Amino acid sequence: MTTRPAAASGTTHADVAVIGAGIVGLAAAWRLSQRGLRVALVDPSPAAAATHAAAGMLAPVSEVRYGETALLRLGMASLARYPDLVAELEASTGVVVGLRREGTLIVATDAGDRDLLNELQAFQTSLGLSATLLTSHECRGLEPMLAPEIRCGLLAASDHSVDNRRLAAALLAAISATDVDLVSATVASVTTHGDRAIGVTLAGGGQITAATTVLAAGPWCATLPGIPDDARPPVRPVKGEILRLRTRPNTALPGHSIRGFVNGHEIYLVPRADGELVVGATVEDAGFDTSVRAGAVREMLRDARAVMPSIDELELVEAIAALRPGSPDNAPMIGPTGLDGLLVATGHHRNGILLAAITADLVADLVSGESVDRELLEAVSPQRFALTRTSS
Amino acid sequence: MTTRPAAASGTTHADVAVIGAGIVGLAAAWRLSQRGLRVALVDPSPAAAATHAAAGMLAPVSEVRYGETALLRLGMASLARYPDLVAELEASTGVVVGLRREGTLIVATDAGDRDLLNELQAFQTSLGLSATLLTSHECRGLEPMLAPEIRCGLLAASDHSVDNRRLAAALLAAISATDVDLVSATVASVTTHGDRAIGVTLAGGGQITAATTVLAAGPWCATLPGIPDDARPPVRPVKGEILRLRTRPNTALPGHSIRGFVNGHEIYLVPRADGELVVGATVEDAGFDTSVRAGAVREMLRDARAVMPSIDELELVEAIAALRPGSPDNAPMIGPTGLDGLLVATGHHRNGILLAAITADLVADLVSGESVDRELLEAVSPQRFALTRTSS
Repeated sequence: MTTRPAAASGTTHADVAVIGAGIVGLAAAWRLSQRGLRVALVDPSPAAAATHAAAGMLAPVSEVRYGETALLRLGMASLARYPDLVAELEASTGVVVGLRREGTLIVATDAGDRDLLNELQAFQTSLGLSATLLTSHECRGLEPMLAPEIRCGLLAASDHSVDNRRLAAALLAAISATDVDLVSATVASVTTHGDRAIGVTLAGGGQITAATTVLAAGPWCATLPGIPDDARPPVRPVKGEILRLRTRPNTALPGHSIRGFVNGHEIYLVPRADGELVVGATVEDAGFDTSVRAGAVREMLRDARAVMPSIDELELVEAIAALRPGSPDNAPMIGPTGLDGLLVATGHHRNGILLAAITADLVADLVSGESVDRELLEAVSPQRFALTRTSS
Repeated sequence: MTTRPAAASGTTHADVAVIGAGIVGLAAAWRLSQRGLRVALVDPSPAAAATHAAAGMLAPVSEVRYGETALLRLGMASLARYPDLVAELEASTGVVVGLRREGTLIVATDAGDRDLLNELQAFQTSLGLSATLLTSHECRGLEPMLAPEIRCGLLAASDHSVDNRRLAAALLAAISATDVDLVSATVASVTTHGDRAIGVTLAGGGQITAATTVLAAGPWCATLPGIPDDARPPVRPVKGEILRLRTRPNTALPGHSIRGFVNGHEIYLVPRADGELVVGATVEDAGFDTSVRAGAVREMLRDARAVMPSIDELELVEAIAALRPGSPDNAPMIGPTGLDGLLVATGHHRNGILLAAITADLVADLVSGESVDRELLEAVSPQRFALTRTSS
């Protein structure tokens, strides 16, 4: 890897210009480079924003919502690639990524929340997924620190989690062993020539020309200059607040990731081997605001305690807010846009870390012209919104 | 001022060695210097710890507890000195300290809390203090954002507040214009010769000799080597967690400091002119632990919201914990110890910022041999605990 600041002027060439070094851009740049392509990856702050803030749940089963069957299939396909991805990254970089396979325990505290769990179990069973309904007693057998008020639970044994900050560090380390050009600059615009994207113009005035440009800038895809309206992905910022807690003397963490429903609110607790517990996360439409709302912190601590009272005794180390990219149907947009030479990979909403594995592979397949899983690709095509707009 | 790192060896001389550059040590060093004394002020991290974390309430009336009449007198005497102190500091340094004179509005949310307010008002009236009982309606007339559940209030119009971080910065700036020697070092021990303190030994091995040594190291007074048992102030660390919130678009702060009683819990909200709202604070005996407990943050946000729901919309900027020095009766210890040449100024508990003004004057009076208010001094004499120990 070469790392350089914004070119004040001048033109460099690459096979692929990737805009955005969040988890999706990082993974895509790495996979593209492995296909022998010369990649320029442009971001003023790699692995910051949502990639830094995330909890790292790899939880397609516990995340699934009724009707999101296509998204579930995509999530499970991405999860299936994670063990190999992590093994490859850890072997090549020595960075331990913190993949955990203990599964997610979903718990409910009141009758309404219990109904939610029953529905979730029925839906999962209808899809042929393993999701075991547990009594209150069985839940506490698995996690003794759960609140006595927990009425029942559902074990999604196949869900995993990963330390997203370590994963991003591993990807940066892996990229450093390739010839990816990591450009520390802001993209001023996508450069077009006729009806084609031909690269990017940097804020300093420099140009990167590329046969293919990959737009992986999360919610900022919606505001980046130079993209024709009919090629611009309809993505919005979805704010999330998240807390990082840490063990203090005489405290302990749960063994599983815990997802709780508390009076209709959702909360999750994701443990790390190093004593960290990530608590998240809110879903707010608040524009590009990344301030941590006091009320969001209050509600997360309240709901986390309702699930597991002992979290009161942990240390609060960090409260952070970040913006996830949301599409109109909350599924990602991966694939060609209405502008030749411009691919998009964004709209991953709450599943950016989970879906990075398969997104990177799809982007690499598409750019390198290899065979692509057409069924998967259709479900995530950015064109699905363009078609809707035309017919309305 | 000269500032220097820890002397690896060698001996320097001063009239007074002050151990600890928290608010008390800073103010004392400044006042001592104004009396023409040559001061060495020793601290590896000036104005950190509780001085940095504090809320800056100057609130002897709303802080008073039944039976703490002597402490109330001391607090009122110190408050009376604040306007001149601030005027002098601001004029000499140009640092705006953020003194606010709007008063404290004390509010109660349930019947039990209302009883507390009635008792407080009766006690204050018995002492000849102005404390006006207000109806729920009158409270919201003063502060429209108060919760509808507020049942009654008490206005302590004479209470003030100050931005403690700006105050400490102003004191550091004021000291920089004097010949105070600010030594950035840890004190390894108080140095004694025969039955006298003769200065301090630094962790690097250096010596500072001084006719008088002032022990202003907060809770660390209890652990500093070199002090004979019968001269050591019986001080303990009292942990406090505190939050800093900040306005976001379309939010506002209260005009007064607000102290609330919520189901027996106490909470206060202290506004700053620059858009900050300080919310505090817990009182915990937890040794020298300064980790921010998640449960403490949860309770503060819960109780602050019960008083003023709109705080949910503010930004959470900081959560911090620090250790206040507490004496057996929670009143400060200011004056000579059982060791000649050693004065102590600690034990200020929740009132360190308020009492710094009078503490600094008392220390300067004592060291420079000027006439001292004997009645005040008796109430805060460190010897009161020594006498108790001897007679038990």
